[in-house]
Amino acid sequence: MSSSIRVAICGAGPSGLSQLHAFESARQKGCEIPEIVCYEKQSDLGGQWNYTWRTGLDEYNEHVHSSMYFNLWTNLPKECAEYVDYTYDKHFGQSVPSYLPRNMFYDYIRGYAQQNNVCQYIQFNKNIQWINYLEEKNKFNIVIKDLKNDKIYSEEFDYVIIATGHYSTPFIPYLNGIETFPGRLLHSHDYRFAEDSQNKNVLIVGNGVSGEDIALELYKYGTKFIRISYRTKAKELKWPDEIKEVPSITKIDKNIVYFKDESSDRFDAIIYCTGYVHHFPYLDDNLRLKSSNSIYLPNLYKTIFWLDQPRLIYIGMQRVTFALNIANIQSWYARDFILGNIKLPATKQEMELDIKQWKIKEKNIKNIYDAFHFQKDYLIDLLNSTDYPNFNVEQMMEILFDCIKARNENILTYRDKIYTSPITNTIAKQHHTTWIKEFSQSLEDFIQK
Amino acid sequence: MSSSIRVAICGAGPSGLSQLHAFESARQKGCEIPEIVCYEKQSDLGGQWNYTWRTGLDEYNEHVHSSMYFNLWTNLPKECAEYVDYTYDKHFGQSVPSYLPRNMFYDYIRGYAQQNNVCQYIQFNKNIQWINYLEEKNKFNIVIKDLKNDKIYSEEFDYVIIATGHYSTPFIPYLNGIETFPGRLLHSHDYRFAEDSQNKNVLIVGNGVSGEDIALELYKYGTKFIRISYRTKAKELKWPDEIKEVPSITKIDKNIVYFKDESSDRFDAIIYCTGYVHHFPYLDDNLRLKSSNSIYLPNLYKTIFWLDQPRLIYIGMQRVTFALNIANIQSWYARDFILGNIKLPATKQEMELDIKQWKIKEKNIKNIYDAFHFQKDYLIDLLNSTDYPNFNVEQMMEILFDCIKARNENILTYRDKIYTSPITNTIAKQHHTTWIKEFSQSLEDFIQK
Repeated sequence: MSSSIRVAICGAGPSGLSQLHAFESARQKGCEIPEIVCYEKQSDLGGQWNYTWRTGLDEYNEHVHSSMYFNLWTNLPKECAEYVDYTYDKHFGQSVPSYLPRNMFYDYIRGYAQQNNVCQYIQFNKNIQWINYLEEKNKFNIVIKDLKNDKIYSEEFDYVIIATGHYSTPFIPYLNGIETFPGRLLHSHDYRFAEDSQNKNVLIVGNGVSGEDIALELYKYGTKFIRISYRTKAKELKWPDEIKEVPSITKIDKNIVYFKDESSDRFDAIIYCTGYVHHFPYLDDNLRLKSSNSIYLPNLYKTIFWLDQPRLIYIGMQRVTFALNIANIQSWYARDFILGNIKLPATKQEMELDIKQWKIKEKNIKNIYDAFHFQKDYLIDLLNSTDYPNFNVEQMMEILFDCIKARNENILTYRDKIYTSPITNTIAKQHHTTWIKEFSQSLEDFIQK
Repeated sequence: MSSSIRVAICGAGPSGLSQLHAFESARQKGCEIPEIVCYEKQSDLGGQWNYTWRTGLDEYNEHVHSSMYFNLWTNLPKECAEYVDYTYDKHFGQSVPSYLPRNMFYDYIRGYAQQNNVCQYIQFNKNIQWINYLEEKNKFNIVIKDLKNDKIYSEEFDYVIIATGHYSTPFIPYLNGIETFPGRLLHSHDYRFAEDSQNKNVLIVGNGVSGEDIALELYKYGTKFIRISYRTKAKELKWPDEIKEVPSITKIDKNIVYFKDESSDRFDAIIYCTGYVHHFPYLDDNLRLKSSNSIYLPNLYKTIFWLDQPRLIYIGMQRVTFALNIANIQSWYARDFILGNIKLPATKQEMELDIKQWKIKEKNIKNIYDAFHFQKDYLIDLLNSTDYPNFNVEQMMEILFDCIKARNENILTYRDKIYTSPITNTIAKQHHTTWIKEFSQSLEDFIQK
């Protein structure tokens, strides 16, 4: 292929790093690759995992990307998110527990980036301001802001890869009377520490993943009164006494919150755990994915290629559980398309038909187990078309099943379970301390003998 | 003038409303005016005064504009911010106190907009995404996002008026160890209610206007331990015992904050009152004002016209005290330029020379009184060139002097003083309740007989 081809990657989080790895891996095998530029608005890699104490706007007045809280732990076993060619064994030099503190997972992602020599392609502190398509030139025009030097400039590219994530822009619905609430009010995106809530009555709005996890963290750090308001139905997990699920909110009157079952309570803090929206403020209308959080996205062939212009590529945009592996395999697939090794269907109609078939399958999903199966099928479909190393996807899925079971049995201890890696067959190490009593995020405490 | 001339006004806060009023006032006098479109990203007018319970991002994922807190009161007498042709007497139908609750000042601004029939020009829920200059067409290209319909489109204009304010984008400096602080951490931009802090030790960073005002509000609502950390020197106002000024922060270690005088204290919350930055993410580099908060801005002739392209106009961008009147008079001046009634100097050099002369004057400002005099001179300079109704600027300045004096004498009672309007000669009404005991924002309580 011509070396004058230029590819822009937007974002150096797990998805962007995967795409860089895909190209670098081809280059190391002797392939000629296009010119690659990865723009990252933050000053370091890791995307969502690049924790910051800041909330709202960052030091360059850009939206703070990360929604991580300081003491977050992974809520799925690491054995369901392991890079085939950069294993946890390789990174830590020993077997480690199945569940990781945030900082250790971040450490792993940093190790992955270093190992694969991808930092050479990343330009930090560069914010994508605007992308449009120049019909007359057959190229994408990207307006970039050099944040450090406060300068704006444009560049043209043949391919653009959108890898800016979808857990950064909070969805904050209006609640009847919320404007009268004088306590602490925040979205999980801005939640950083549990300590501020120790002596408070805390209401969590939404019983999804964030709601469940923040409720548990508050409990772990000593909050005595936690209510989770669900919209449709209770999770009915075995919560400790301090946590109770309550129905949806009917009214808020200053500190008093009323619920659909006519109960009410006084709250000091309300944490919206109401999820995130896909938001691409830098994309022109004809390029912009508009979607809710779902496992098969509209208008994207293989949930990767923009139907109307397949040289626009989205990585990691669907709701996933095998996050790292799916981003890897999508990136391999996208790379092989760019390198000319994979041909997309000749017509838009064929691609639409393919999407339609997956969408029918998606509709038949009845529960979380069906969803895992769906993703496994999706993964295997892509895997077979690239040189990404094969691995036991079935076994990975079985681990997920067990994890859900353990969580339903005991929400407080499921993170103490260990699993066997489908990649290395290594059995995870039993951590020296149970999750409920472990307050450290440090490497020393994590790999302590 | 040709009616095909198009003028875009960005923002429908006090500055944008002033500009609309200037045009509408000319139209009502029989002038032919250009086509005017005012884009406002919020769903209502008032800009900074359009209070919202939201923080961070708004319902359309745009940066929340307003930095207002619920129980804010004006900190200057209304007699220093009175529209000449829409007085407080006219709005309230009676004499009212000199200091106003936020909501009453907002009410006044809404009344002003209605009275002047300017809402016809405003398109709400339209965010300006990008403005650049098309040399070949001699026009400005504006990319607009219709937030409600999630659509992006472009329009071309002959003149662009930037009226988006400069108290919306927070400046949040790094403090040594701030990342370890597990308490509540926020910038005054995100501060809404004092009630959350009642039993807390609160540290305020910065002793500027926001710092002083939020400290007082916390005290008023029952916070017992408030420290204000200054950077250069203490204000030495007569604080109540609960408030103390402390020097700059040397280190933060979890909840403990250390100061330059080697004292330290435990804090539950830190509020950054460190001010705001001029931020125009939607402006191309060659159009973008880069400035700190100052009373005479660089590269703007009369602090209004962009030197390199005077058809780009900034309103209300300098640090001002007679805010409403200065925005009015700037708008009148800008309008008269657009209508061809005022000619700017023929060369850039002449405009630069004028800026230089004002900048020399600005350098001689030694204290707040000099600053008031400077602004008075600036105001009179503009006033003489337009048909804006004359008023007693000297008298307005004298009121400011007295207000500063009263504040220095007693920080807790200065808002109970009353003044005589230079516009109407009405003596303000003594409020039935002192500021320290008045917790209402309602019209009923405000105009109660």
